[in-house]
Amino acid sequence: MTTANNAPTPRIYTAALAIIGNEILSGRTQDANLAHLAKTLNSWGVELREARVVPDIEGEIVDAVNALRARYDYVFTTGGIGPTHDDITADSIAKAFGVPLVEHSDALAILEAHYPPGELTVVRRRMARVPEGGELIENPISKAPGFKVGNVFVLAGIPAIMRAQLEGARQFIEGGRSVLSKTVSVEVGESRIADLLETAEKRHAGIDMGSYPFFRRGSFGTALVLRGRDPAVLEAAYADLCAALTAAGIEIHPGEFQD
Amino acid sequence: MTTANNAPTPRIYTAALAIIGNEILSGRTQDANLAHLAKTLNSWGVELREARVVPDIEGEIVDAVNALRARYDYVFTTGGIGPTHDDITADSIAKAFGVPLVEHSDALAILEAHYPPGELTVVRRRMARVPEGGELIENPISKAPGFKVGNVFVLAGIPAIMRAQLEGARQFIEGGRSVLSKTVSVEVGESRIADLLETAEKRHAGIDMGSYPFFRRGSFGTALVLRGRDPAVLEAAYADLCAALTAAGIEIHPGEFQD
Repeated sequence: MTTANNAPTPRIYTAALAIIGNEILSGRTQDANLAHLAKTLNSWGVELREARVVPDIEGEIVDAVNALRARYDYVFTTGGIGPTHDDITADSIAKAFGVPLVEHSDALAILEAHYPPGELTVVRRRMARVPEGGELIENPISKAPGFKVGNVFVLAGIPAIMRAQLEGARQFIEGGRSVLSKTVSVEVGESRIADLLETAEKRHAGIDMGSYPFFRRGSFGTALVLRGRDPAVLEAAYADLCAALTAAGIEIHPGEFQD
Repeated sequence: MTTANNAPTPRIYTAALAIIGNEILSGRTQDANLAHLAKTLNSWGVELREARVVPDIEGEIVDAVNALRARYDYVFTTGGIGPTHDDITADSIAKAFGVPLVEHSDALAILEAHYPPGELTVVRRRMARVPEGGELIENPISKAPGFKVGNVFVLAGIPAIMRAQLEGARQFIEGGRSVLSKTVSVEVGESRIADLLETAEKRHAGIDMGSYPFFRRGSFGTALVLRGRDPAVLEAAYADLCAALTAAGIEIHPGEFQD
């Protein structure tokens, strides 16, 4: 990646995630898709800006998806696309777009090829239903496709399937420059480095500096994470921050502490 | 708990969570507070209905908190209450309520008692700031208090501190009946039990039946989770579902599979 100092500001592509499922909100299941989506999208040059966890209630899904798709370049949903009566994501997305839910011939063909003769029951055929005008998102690993309607990408909740479908969604995603990050860790609490960090951030436009406290071996430490799109600016900011920490008598450890 | 069949429907208490932090949205940090909050609130008779992950941007926090506090009995926020410049939750909550952010004398006293003489710096004093009219949430384990303004409870992001502050919030929370759950697992995919599950759910008003597929030892299985507030109705629904599964020739395993 090269950097032109006087180039116009590149476009930033944004995304949001709607995690659909009572099992997340009840605490039964720990979401494992948000972090994977965030990192994958960033590698494609798209920034995850918001996430919502919504229950298996049609009106809630419709409202969340409509709010998010108006605001971000891309919206991803996870969960609720299986064959049972509580899988209402496809119905809800169709409602959100005001289109009927129809059987997709390619999705049906995939299911027909997948199940032994006679085993594609009415219930399983439910999984071939896609909002009218929707496109299938192929799943290069297992069979079950997700689908795309407008800027909304509908994926499974099971992490292994979600990840495969996300790979299939790649072809539809246009991104910009990825956010790059560098981390330096210190064995002092946040309040020791607060002023220094704020001052360093002000010296480097385009770089966000975040501080993340942690407990380790019974005492506080802080990870300082620098994030920005321009690698040269990021390197300069990192070097400057490390120099400022050292000048303040604080020992620095490149990267995150590994426990 | 006793059950009166003709009693009026008890009030349901609801809550939402706003997870504040760029580090969650970047995928750097995995949220560990949602599931704990959901389970704890449920044990207090409050149902977590929605969660949002919002970035460290004041306008975003204000909008999310105002949307959620108008809609749910209680709103919890996690993250962004430390001493550094990117900790903007207290400022944002004050903006959301349209009140000034002021130094809370009790919070200041806690900090003064905590730090050695001369070490309560300007930066650390930031942590004593609370929206006007706010009440401190005591932290029975470590020192740092959270605070409460109206129906909004502002807690730390670090799980150990968040959990202690949540205990301190207990006194402000009025709840109803907890949601109880029972689980039965089967070694067949969701589509095999979809019809049977939907039929069983229709026979038992007040019970939600969810199905959660999983991979285990190379094949699909499904956990069937029944949830409801009336223990007698829940037991009857569970017994009925188990009988229906057995009658369909499907082996049942009480509870979740443990791997």
